[in-house]
Amino acid sequence: MKAQPLPERRSGCPINLTLETVGDRWSLLVIRDLMFGNRRHFRELLMNSEEGIASNILADRLRRLTEAGLVTRADDPDHKQKGIYSLTEKAIQLVPLLAHMGAWGRRHLPVSEELSVRARLLEEGGPQLWDEFMDELRETHLGVKRKKSGATVMERLQAAYEAACRKSRRT
Amino acid sequence: MKAQPLPERRSGCPINLTLETVGDRWSLLVIRDLMFGNRRHFRELLMNSEEGIASNILADRLRRLTEAGLVTRADDPDHKQKGIYSLTEKAIQLVPLLAHMGAWGRRHLPVSEELSVRARLLEEGGPQLWDEFMDELRETHLGVKRKKSGATVMERLQAAYEAACRKSRRT
Repeated sequence: MKAQPLPERRSGCPINLTLETVGDRWSLLVIRDLMFGNRRHFRELLMNSEEGIASNILADRLRRLTEAGLVTRADDPDHKQKGIYSLTEKAIQLVPLLAHMGAWGRRHLPVSEELSVRARLLEEGGPQLWDEFMDELRETHLGVKRKKSGATVMERLQAAYEAACRKSRRT
Repeated sequence: MKAQPLPERRSGCPINLTLETVGDRWSLLVIRDLMFGNRRHFRELLMNSEEGIASNILADRLRRLTEAGLVTRADDPDHKQKGIYSLTEKAIQLVPLLAHMGAWGRRHLPVSEELSVRARLLEEGGPQLWDEFMDELRETHLGVKRKKSGATVMERLQAAYEAACRKSRRT
């Protein structure tokens, strides 16, 4: 598939440019799943999508995100026919934005308990936790060894999510 | 025009719900202009749009934002035939999200100097400045008297923007 040029920029306002880059809801959901779900293959992103993303939309958004320098694709060393997608530094720096998006959604919209427990932990942890999480993402996606050792933010988020899922199944 | 129901929710994830509510770029640009530009009439929002929003898109987004409880419309006491739009508390609480969006855009995208000076001030001011600005917005949009007196954040942002415009005209 030939890459399409990005649409013309409508203004140099930083909010406008951010919205031109990631301001359609599917793009940020793909980034969310790469980031918090560590879904790195096309098939995982497709099959595990909570929102039921369509295959053609996923392919289009991965292409756009790659062109915008937010995602890279490499051949997976374990499965030569599969690509593995990684976040770039630019995308990793979206952590605070996604944390705020989750915090606002949790406060004002009808969220589900299991899917919002990670947003709560991120909000409570604040900028210090986001920095720690960004360091982990740099290790996972960019191969830059993180400074801190011990249980990762990702592990803590995942454990809290799984506990909330068990609790919701019991009730 | 009869109000359309909001689309069905695809998941209870707070990031998804936030994107379902404000995750198309025009909605957040309309909120930005109400918030930072204090453009309260349809015509001002249309004519002063940096991004050249089309009249039918503006009307549609104002309707959707009203239905989502982010904007209210009242008759303007000075011009009975005109409506005046106000942000709700829910929309005012988007200030930190917009500040982060501006900060990320400024760092990673080709922003213009005049349109990014306010984003820089908001970023440098951090959560304390955002709180102060939200208090001012509550006064302007909700009629709740703010605690602090003296020069407002809005005045400081506006002065910095105008200085940047003058500078860019000189060069």
